[in-house]
Amino acid sequence: MPKRILRVNMTNLEAKFEDLPGDYAALGGRGMTSTIVSIEVPPTCHPLGIHNKLVFAPGIVTGTKAPTSGRLSVGGKSPLTGGIKEANVGTNFAQMLGRMRIGAMIIEGKHEGDDYFLLKVTNDGAEFIDANKWVGKGLYDTYKALFKEFGDKVGICGVGIAAELLGAMSGVCFNDPEGLPSRYAGRGGLGAVMASKGLKFIIVDETDAPGVEIANQDVFNGGIKKLREALTAHDVTKPQGGLNSFGTAVLVNIINEAQGLPQRNFSRGQDDRCEKISGEVKAEEIKKRGGVRPHFCSPGCIIQCSEVWTKPGGKDPVGVLEYESVWALGANCEIYNLDDIGELNRACNDLGCDTIEAGNTLAVSMEGGLAKFGDGKGALKLMNEIYKKTPTGRMLAQGTEITGKVLGVTRIPTVKGQALPAYDPRAIKGIGVTYATTPMGADHTAGYAIAPEIMGVGGKVDPRDPKKAEVSRNLQLATAALDATGYCLFVAFAILDIPEGLEGIVESLNGVLGANLTVDDVAVIGKQIIDIELDFNKRAGFTAIDDRLPEFFMEEKLPPSDEVFDVTDDELDSVF
Amino acid sequence: MPKRILRVNMTNLEAKFEDLPGDYAALGGRGMTSTIVSIEVPPTCHPLGIHNKLVFAPGIVTGTKAPTSGRLSVGGKSPLTGGIKEANVGTNFAQMLGRMRIGAMIIEGKHEGDDYFLLKVTNDGAEFIDANKWVGKGLYDTYKALFKEFGDKVGICGVGIAAELLGAMSGVCFNDPEGLPSRYAGRGGLGAVMASKGLKFIIVDETDAPGVEIANQDVFNGGIKKLREALTAHDVTKPQGGLNSFGTAVLVNIINEAQGLPQRNFSRGQDDRCEKISGEVKAEEIKKRGGVRPHFCSPGCIIQCSEVWTKPGGKDPVGVLEYESVWALGANCEIYNLDDIGELNRACNDLGCDTIEAGNTLAVSMEGGLAKFGDGKGALKLMNEIYKKTPTGRMLAQGTEITGKVLGVTRIPTVKGQALPAYDPRAIKGIGVTYATTPMGADHTAGYAIAPEIMGVGGKVDPRDPKKAEVSRNLQLATAALDATGYCLFVAFAILDIPEGLEGIVESLNGVLGANLTVDDVAVIGKQIIDIELDFNKRAGFTAIDDRLPEFFMEEKLPPSDEVFDVTDDELDSVF
Repeated sequence: MPKRILRVNMTNLEAKFEDLPGDYAALGGRGMTSTIVSIEVPPTCHPLGIHNKLVFAPGIVTGTKAPTSGRLSVGGKSPLTGGIKEANVGTNFAQMLGRMRIGAMIIEGKHEGDDYFLLKVTNDGAEFIDANKWVGKGLYDTYKALFKEFGDKVGICGVGIAAELLGAMSGVCFNDPEGLPSRYAGRGGLGAVMASKGLKFIIVDETDAPGVEIANQDVFNGGIKKLREALTAHDVTKPQGGLNSFGTAVLVNIINEAQGLPQRNFSRGQDDRCEKISGEVKAEEIKKRGGVRPHFCSPGCIIQCSEVWTKPGGKDPVGVLEYESVWALGANCEIYNLDDIGELNRACNDLGCDTIEAGNTLAVSMEGGLAKFGDGKGALKLMNEIYKKTPTGRMLAQGTEITGKVLGVTRIPTVKGQALPAYDPRAIKGIGVTYATTPMGADHTAGYAIAPEIMGVGGKVDPRDPKKAEVSRNLQLATAALDATGYCLFVAFAILDIPEGLEGIVESLNGVLGANLTVDDVAVIGKQIIDIELDFNKRAGFTAIDDRLPEFFMEEKLPPSDEVFDVTDDELDSVF
Repeated sequence: MPKRILRVNMTNLEAKFEDLPGDYAALGGRGMTSTIVSIEVPPTCHPLGIHNKLVFAPGIVTGTKAPTSGRLSVGGKSPLTGGIKEANVGTNFAQMLGRMRIGAMIIEGKHEGDDYFLLKVTNDGAEFIDANKWVGKGLYDTYKALFKEFGDKVGICGVGIAAELLGAMSGVCFNDPEGLPSRYAGRGGLGAVMASKGLKFIIVDETDAPGVEIANQDVFNGGIKKLREALTAHDVTKPQGGLNSFGTAVLVNIINEAQGLPQRNFSRGQDDRCEKISGEVKAEEIKKRGGVRPHFCSPGCIIQCSEVWTKPGGKDPVGVLEYESVWALGANCEIYNLDDIGELNRACNDLGCDTIEAGNTLAVSMEGGLAKFGDGKGALKLMNEIYKKTPTGRMLAQGTEITGKVLGVTRIPTVKGQALPAYDPRAIKGIGVTYATTPMGADHTAGYAIAPEIMGVGGKVDPRDPKKAEVSRNLQLATAALDATGYCLFVAFAILDIPEGLEGIVESLNGVLGANLTVDDVAVIGKQIIDIELDFNKRAGFTAIDDRLPEFFMEEKLPPSDEVFDVTDDELDSVF
């Protein structure tokens, strides 16, 4: 059975398999979603209108035994940025699509009227099921009920209350291995795109799936062996390494030390209280409470950076508290309390919100006077407005830029409408170049300059040096390619330092595709993807002026380093 | 005494006169504001930040005896559109500036902290006065008190509660001849720019003003005589003509008849109930109640299209109910009741809101479920949220696009973020071309294609014909020039049909400036101004994609004509 596309038309509630076109055969993940969006979605269309499409694509090796490769790309025109979007998530849902040889699932059209549907996808076809009974409900209870209704072995994709509000902070939610609604293709408001079409859930049942077709099993096996060795050798990715022991929040102390951990809506880059919300303290607390750590987001992961955070006594599991979430919902709101952060993260998962966008939105709301900085209960109360679908909740659900504008806040930390992640671009400038220039809007994962700037991975550069176009460009190209493979971005830590790891990845791709790619092709593939995305954005009306950070990063010094973002416009424009 | 600039620095509270640079000598109104904004304001700056400036400039002949020439241009970078803005108002404040030979007043910098100031400008200088006692108060009571404090003869410019909220629907308010806060440089949120700087009011006292310098009195007198004759001869502008008898709302029946009067947030183009809110019915009612009609917005006007609407018994005067306001606050919200519309207009004036933006915002709120269409009391309740500065009020104060986005409404009638005026571009396509292509965002006054399309003024073209680039371009050029002169746009009705009227205008300019302009220079001057504005917008990041109407105008048919906006992108792009 060849690879296929599942095309889902929400206007007339039809879903049918199509053969994957020949020229899509070598595409996967972000390469697949960005290609399809670029070809099928008019760049100037309304992101919540009938012409936008939502595209799901597993990576090239996703569904195989390749380690740490359970990634799914979700693409479309973003209601947050107005540009092309790929949001990436690790989940067994991705692996199931891979094994069912569904290269892409394209959701198009728009159901007229207020009904919501659930799409059940099996190896043989797809059916629509009335989903109205789940509307207005939190995702924790709902996912539990869905597993009960459809069986433990299915994969679930869904959108929450924030998406029902067509909120631009809404993500697309997937289950973690415990069935918790805690894995998100979070960024860019793609949850609202899904909801705008009348689609509430997608259930995948992989029974009878043929598995990923592997053209050359020996080449593939050789490749994944090399990669596995690299991952188990590198300090960042190995068992009992940084990510495995403390999760992504291992970065809290590191970035705080580097004076680049934004506090109080990007007002300071350091605070001693961050120790209380560090990865180290969190890991200790999880152990004490009887949560789970380490943990994988999808089967077959070596790194296992995930976890299950719980209330005291191991009660009411939330899922992972990522570094970005701890920062956004914590330090950036001056909330230095893991229990408050855990409950805010629970609210985000339950409502279907991107935690980065939500945390920035809360911080901007605090600056706009809706709550006090540091008030965890006040922040939860604001999230509760989203549950109640009040005007305030509807504002918050639209994210940082809209909320900031409504409240007359001039310090709004966004690029292309998307809120900044957990690294202040004044103290760590390369990541600022990525924020400014990636077609995605402010996104650290698009070219993670923190690796060479702070972690000394893939070389070592001075975080305060404003000449960072090349660093950011190279990382952006490599990342785009990696986002197509299905491997988790975190394999980059190992392969940037261990050449055999990268060779292993390329060999694993050759094994699956029957291709003859070399290591040098990686940047070429990345460039092809980014060119497609830049072209989409250009056709949507973006110019170099959109590749800029907000004014206050250039004008307000960041204590204690007292740095400003002094990367020149020419330097930014030289990235692409 | 030569012409001067009053430069007001809000950072250090300094105001000083400067000589008007020689190359500004022939500039006035929109020519002056757009030139200064283009040179002095960085196009990518935050519109509410320290780098934006607010520029006031009377027209070239403003302050003279030239008929119908009491116009003031207010310019800056718009918080609503992100582009350059000129908002135009008729008021004796303009004439006073002209007679004081203040060619431009430039407000720059930004007061740090929460204090508001009043700037008192006299012929000899300017002083800052604490204005905190007026904060949070409605403008009707405040203007009354200000006249009491500063004398009946001053001119007042001010911003209201909407501007205190930094709302992008806030206008800059001027007194009418009765002292009512009812004349607005309304569009584009320039009130928020003024408030962002800490400036609440400007009081002008023209005592000892030397008057406008007229280089050649004979030429000037000959010119204004010709213009006066044209104005008193043309059916639209003459005494007891259409505008004089019924005000701008004479258009209600005309545009409704043309199936182009948008109802219920641009859902239909006609409704029989519009008769109840027509200019004819309103004029009758004003007479019955003991209001004033006709009435001028500034002394020396021949057309006198204004009025004073009151409650029954002549109580609680509101000021004029313009066609645009009656439509926006009325038909577009399905409110067909002049008393409700009057109270909504009062709220707009009192809060400092642009009525077009406010009415569209209310309609979009109704579509988003915050009130019912047709519910005048519900609409007033929403306006009351702005008084109370609640989150809902803060949302509304930001205008149509933000409100629509917050509420997940996809039918948002805006161009470049600015709400559409009272002509549906599907039924009357030339005005749609102007909405799409003017650098101002959706603005009927920028190139009033309604004149040839509906009124048969300046020729007659089919409103349904989508070839309108040339019609719109010519009108936009002529309008930009007219906006520089200080003459009211409504003189255009006469001069488009009566060549001697246009000659008279040119002669009056030559009289004031000692120049030798010809009628052919009008389009050249207009082109210069628009080129400056287009260049600013380009540097701010605008592209052809911003010169488009929202998707739903191309896709949803407008009953009863069932027209869509079928002007091609190429046609739009050929305008400039």
